[in-house]
Amino acid sequence: MSGEQLQAELQALESRYTELAARQLKLDLTRGKPSAAQVALSDALDGILGGNYRAADGTDVRNYGGLDGLPEAKQLFAGMLEMPADAILIGGNSSLTLMYAVIDFALSFGLRGPESAWGNSDEVKFLCPVPGYDRHFAICEHLGIEMVPVPMLATGPDMDAVEKLVAADPAIKGMWCVPRFSNPTGCVYSRATVERLAQLGNIAGDDFVLMYDNAYAVHTLYPDAEPLASLYAACERHGTLDSVFQFGSTSKITFAGAGVAFMGSSPANLAAFKQHLGFQSIGPDKVNQLRHVRFLGDAEGLAALMGKHAELLRPRFEAVLEILEAELAGTGMGEWLSPRGGYFISFNTRPGLAKTVVKLAADVGVALTPAGATFPYGNDPEDSNIRLAPSFPSLEDVQATAEVFALCVKLASVRQRLAGN
Amino acid sequence: MSGEQLQAELQALESRYTELAARQLKLDLTRGKPSAAQVALSDALDGILGGNYRAADGTDVRNYGGLDGLPEAKQLFAGMLEMPADAILIGGNSSLTLMYAVIDFALSFGLRGPESAWGNSDEVKFLCPVPGYDRHFAICEHLGIEMVPVPMLATGPDMDAVEKLVAADPAIKGMWCVPRFSNPTGCVYSRATVERLAQLGNIAGDDFVLMYDNAYAVHTLYPDAEPLASLYAACERHGTLDSVFQFGSTSKITFAGAGVAFMGSSPANLAAFKQHLGFQSIGPDKVNQLRHVRFLGDAEGLAALMGKHAELLRPRFEAVLEILEAELAGTGMGEWLSPRGGYFISFNTRPGLAKTVVKLAADVGVALTPAGATFPYGNDPEDSNIRLAPSFPSLEDVQATAEVFALCVKLASVRQRLAGN
Repeated sequence: MSGEQLQAELQALESRYTELAARQLKLDLTRGKPSAAQVALSDALDGILGGNYRAADGTDVRNYGGLDGLPEAKQLFAGMLEMPADAILIGGNSSLTLMYAVIDFALSFGLRGPESAWGNSDEVKFLCPVPGYDRHFAICEHLGIEMVPVPMLATGPDMDAVEKLVAADPAIKGMWCVPRFSNPTGCVYSRATVERLAQLGNIAGDDFVLMYDNAYAVHTLYPDAEPLASLYAACERHGTLDSVFQFGSTSKITFAGAGVAFMGSSPANLAAFKQHLGFQSIGPDKVNQLRHVRFLGDAEGLAALMGKHAELLRPRFEAVLEILEAELAGTGMGEWLSPRGGYFISFNTRPGLAKTVVKLAADVGVALTPAGATFPYGNDPEDSNIRLAPSFPSLEDVQATAEVFALCVKLASVRQRLAGN
Repeated sequence: MSGEQLQAELQALESRYTELAARQLKLDLTRGKPSAAQVALSDALDGILGGNYRAADGTDVRNYGGLDGLPEAKQLFAGMLEMPADAILIGGNSSLTLMYAVIDFALSFGLRGPESAWGNSDEVKFLCPVPGYDRHFAICEHLGIEMVPVPMLATGPDMDAVEKLVAADPAIKGMWCVPRFSNPTGCVYSRATVERLAQLGNIAGDDFVLMYDNAYAVHTLYPDAEPLASLYAACERHGTLDSVFQFGSTSKITFAGAGVAFMGSSPANLAAFKQHLGFQSIGPDKVNQLRHVRFLGDAEGLAALMGKHAELLRPRFEAVLEILEAELAGTGMGEWLSPRGGYFISFNTRPGLAKTVVKLAADVGVALTPAGATFPYGNDPEDSNIRLAPSFPSLEDVQATAEVFALCVKLASVRQRLAGN
């Protein structure tokens, strides 16, 4: 475009933006929450026990006990993590709580006894694929763990960089992963990536922990979405089961924040963690575990429910992607991926514009995830990544938001271009 | 009794004991668990929402959010702790988890900022009224907090001793209390004790914390059971609200381990704790909170339910007390109190016999709480206290157990006497 064309374009964009401001929108695309229609898919949970509070082994779930969960709950969720049932521990309503507890335990008490406590070292570092999940980063920051960003590729974390860092720096005690439909890029770790992750335990020290947050394990938008190779099987082959904790929950399957969280690890890790956990809890809510087992049934029941979620989510994702495609494809003003599952679309503006775009949107009543949130310490060095979360609003609102977003991207990009950057 | 009479008595007791052994009993009086009939009183919980998942303020409890609980849940449980609703934080299913989290927070992060973290000191000590609750003591031991026992009187902890210790030793950072129907003595702290506890915050340092586990706040066995004075009101008068965390749960009201836990403290304490909590959780299970609000209703509904619990518990307590009275009153072989609420009967053998009695009972198939469990580090210096927990077994089993217990006490006492101790 010539300077004149650009000026005309800017005027057109600014006039559309002014119109938008007048509409006094109130839209929110900030968090990966299921919609009301999604959670309503599980309304049958309350009341499903029909007065039968006995687990399969006769346990009265209305009474104390069961530090690590009901056998049938372990069985059901083991399938989601592709692990044996005896490698599973059932938690409360939040996998985040389990993750925090594991890291806190490794820091203060040590996974292999007091001498292995990370807190004994002056420095503790975690590898953080970026962009990534802000709540993972917040745990590290709160607990004084230094975060080392590594690039996220279409195949997962840049494993060359990961292996080099882990081999070189014994202060690196862990790494965050969201292996399927990663938050926010939506990528699925490739088989080769999973295989190399499984071998980290042989490169790193004894006290290294892969925090494998499989939050979107079954959260496909399309039946043919790329599967994830089994990390457990790979770790078994490489003798590295002790180096991994896997996590999952039903928060985006049944009720968000009122579901069942779980984790899986090696016998030694589970034994150490349970010993610690026993000082804090007599056991998680078994009634809710039994509700979930009765409601979900088995892998097939789970898949059927996820299919219904996909029906609700797919149009929202497609609406955003269609608008991005129509408005921004080929303009050089941004890059994005088309995820086949998960809860997010990750968008990269031209360098230096993410904060501007988020502010432009906020000023016309559209809340986006804060720019930088997908990076440790909120610091996106390129100021480029924005996480779009289209699950919660109505389809109409998602469309309206995507249009505002595309307009803000264009407006910021054209202004930048005119300013000669 | 003469030596001959004693020998005859011993023979009679031993012959009865041998008969018992042949009966191959399998009885368990170890833990304060509600019975199946008690938890069944709340069977209506599952299904009570009838598809209405909206809280009073319109919150969809099936979705994320609400770090500190639903307003109506705060309102309901605030009444139990006699505190204002905005002083309440709702947790997950376990008050033990909340207690652990508060102590861990005060140790590692500090209630008044990093400089106030107890962990900055070489020594951290807690006052522990004895006999007391083993899970409280276990938290201290696990977290490296030195426990200092103080005697429990009929009016609560020996406050002369408590005040002297707190004034003299700045390493004392906290104190455990179970103020109503204390575990295990069943005593209710007197008004004077509560008043003096409220003033500890003015004797102790800024970082002192009274861990006030009001686990049996509404757990009366008789309608005329002694009430507990309001600690909150006393702290307000003395300006010491920051020195107290109060705890409660519905584990012995609705479902044990599948209820709702809560705590109350000052605005400053709650703000600091919530900031920390936000790194570990998006919020507790609001669906279960709403179930509890709908099921319990209000203070009257709660009282009606507790009345039904009392009907089931009272005969069990009375059976034990009648047998103790019939078998042991006036023999000098033991002392006990008749609690008006709570879950326990605390029994003191003659010094040096608690372990022997527990072992004698175990050898004929009757499990009692391990001797020493009611003391820090499992160390009862008199080897005298045994906690009896009659709530869970059937009335018949409670009677059988109490008879075995009384026999074991007599057998151990007579043997001791004959051995010349």
